[in-house]
Amino acid sequence: MYDVVIIGGGVAGLTAGLYLSRANKKCVILEGRFLGGQTALLNTVANYPALPNISGFDLVNNLVEQVKSFNTEIKNEIVIDVKKNKNFNIVTNKSKYIAKNLIIASGAKTSSLGLKNEKQFIGKGLSYCATCDGNFFKNQPVAVVGIGKTALEDIKYLDNIVSKLYWIIPNNSLNNKILEEVKSLKKLKIIYSSEVLELVGENTIQKILINDKINKNTYYLEIKGLFVSLGRKPDLTWLNIDVKKNKEGYIIVDKNCKTNVDNLYACGDITYKDLKQIVTACSDGAVAASEIIKQ
Amino acid sequence: MYDVVIIGGGVAGLTAGLYLSRANKKCVILEGRFLGGQTALLNTVANYPALPNISGFDLVNNLVEQVKSFNTEIKNEIVIDVKKNKNFNIVTNKSKYIAKNLIIASGAKTSSLGLKNEKQFIGKGLSYCATCDGNFFKNQPVAVVGIGKTALEDIKYLDNIVSKLYWIIPNNSLNNKILEEVKSLKKLKIIYSSEVLELVGENTIQKILINDKINKNTYYLEIKGLFVSLGRKPDLTWLNIDVKKNKEGYIIVDKNCKTNVDNLYACGDITYKDLKQIVTACSDGAVAASEIIKQ
Repeated sequence: MYDVVIIGGGVAGLTAGLYLSRANKKCVILEGRFLGGQTALLNTVANYPALPNISGFDLVNNLVEQVKSFNTEIKNEIVIDVKKNKNFNIVTNKSKYIAKNLIIASGAKTSSLGLKNEKQFIGKGLSYCATCDGNFFKNQPVAVVGIGKTALEDIKYLDNIVSKLYWIIPNNSLNNKILEEVKSLKKLKIIYSSEVLELVGENTIQKILINDKINKNTYYLEIKGLFVSLGRKPDLTWLNIDVKKNKEGYIIVDKNCKTNVDNLYACGDITYKDLKQIVTACSDGAVAASEIIKQ
Repeated sequence: MYDVVIIGGGVAGLTAGLYLSRANKKCVILEGRFLGGQTALLNTVANYPALPNISGFDLVNNLVEQVKSFNTEIKNEIVIDVKKNKNFNIVTNKSKYIAKNLIIASGAKTSSLGLKNEKQFIGKGLSYCATCDGNFFKNQPVAVVGIGKTALEDIKYLDNIVSKLYWIIPNNSLNNKILEEVKSLKKLKIIYSSEVLELVGENTIQKILINDKINKNTYYLEIKGLFVSLGRKPDLTWLNIDVKKNKEGYIIVDKNCKTNVDNLYACGDITYKDLKQIVTACSDGAVAASEIIKQ
């Protein structure tokens, strides 16, 4: 019987493990892929407080070593099924666990463009987070792809930083509410009915090939940065507990990371909230752990 | 005219400055004492994610350098008066500022025992935060001084870690609700009607002198750690804005660090919340800044 099972070994889950093991709670972190989640994939992290310009890999490595130094169990297992009776019953591809408390910190997957050389340009002109990387493109031309809430926020964030801002959208129009919100942005040019076909550059992105679906032609757009703002996707198909989620599938928590289900907590990118950063995910992990410790 | 004035140069204020300046917002951090706040005073920080076993001084120094690298203004000025008309008017001992947004990150002062050699033992057996330092005393005898909510939480946190736990309280009884909450704690011994008179030790604390007010005698208690859990004190005497506070004087904020006053945000230890850690304060700073950037 564990005090806590933590599902997900990103920075939120790792920090929860850090706090729980320092408080002598019996806990295990279950991670089916690699430790560190989205953070592990980042080239350079510039805005994690007190660790300037560290690679995502090194940041995660520091954190994993820190967590392990307090004897937290970390297991490379894929969670297949989670149910709750009196306690939580967690089934993985290798084992079974029973726990009094469950922390879901399984994150969300960033949606990519699906272009063939996309991975090669990550951190080299291509970014999935304007708040994280916008400042790298101060006074330079950039483009944003996407049309949802994330894209609109990124547009507003970047306009204040870059020299020229292209917003590439698949639709041939935008609704009046959005147009009203962006009308004061000085650097913005909206490119309607278009999609990105190709990323071009030697080491970093130099231009992108645009397909103009109205005029049925293609052309190159010279930019230094491309922000993919297609949002993220939560995946909780393995969870057989009726936890409250928003319409996009993110878990709704209170300010102490509690869900509507007793002893079930969620933290990091799987939760419904406005700002998703490394430091906010870590903070969530500390908060969820501390709530459990206080029980 | 500033986009944002940040009052307080602790880790919350510094992180807000980091996020705002990376988004090209015109902001200034005003700090009347030293940068880093309570964090700067910590000997060893063991639970800040990805920076294991760093001194508070070094952690703060890293963060200050990071913030300065984005040209954030930081000024050593004491805030005397803050009012709001359309904008915020901030008066310091040296200058005046007008800002569209205000972030209050002025922290709270830890209450000390007021003993003559108290400072010399900070980080050497003496701690003001059980969540931060409890793990340093694994399987060792410790004592807690204090009787409020903080003390009760610290007692519950430490019982699971230490070998013996003395709770030194000034009163000759505890109410039934508290007794019920602590009755299952195995390591706890409550020492009623007592106070700590002296801290004794060569390099680290070895024993404390207790004054037993019932039996009117003094004796030494051998411990390795003493936790001062007297709570903290917020100070907002300089703020002439009717912001909503709880009964202890902490600012009430929503999950995005917004107060009840338009364009007024608060983050870190000055806010009313359950867990106050370096990582939660930094997270607050990022959240408040991002709310302002989105405007």
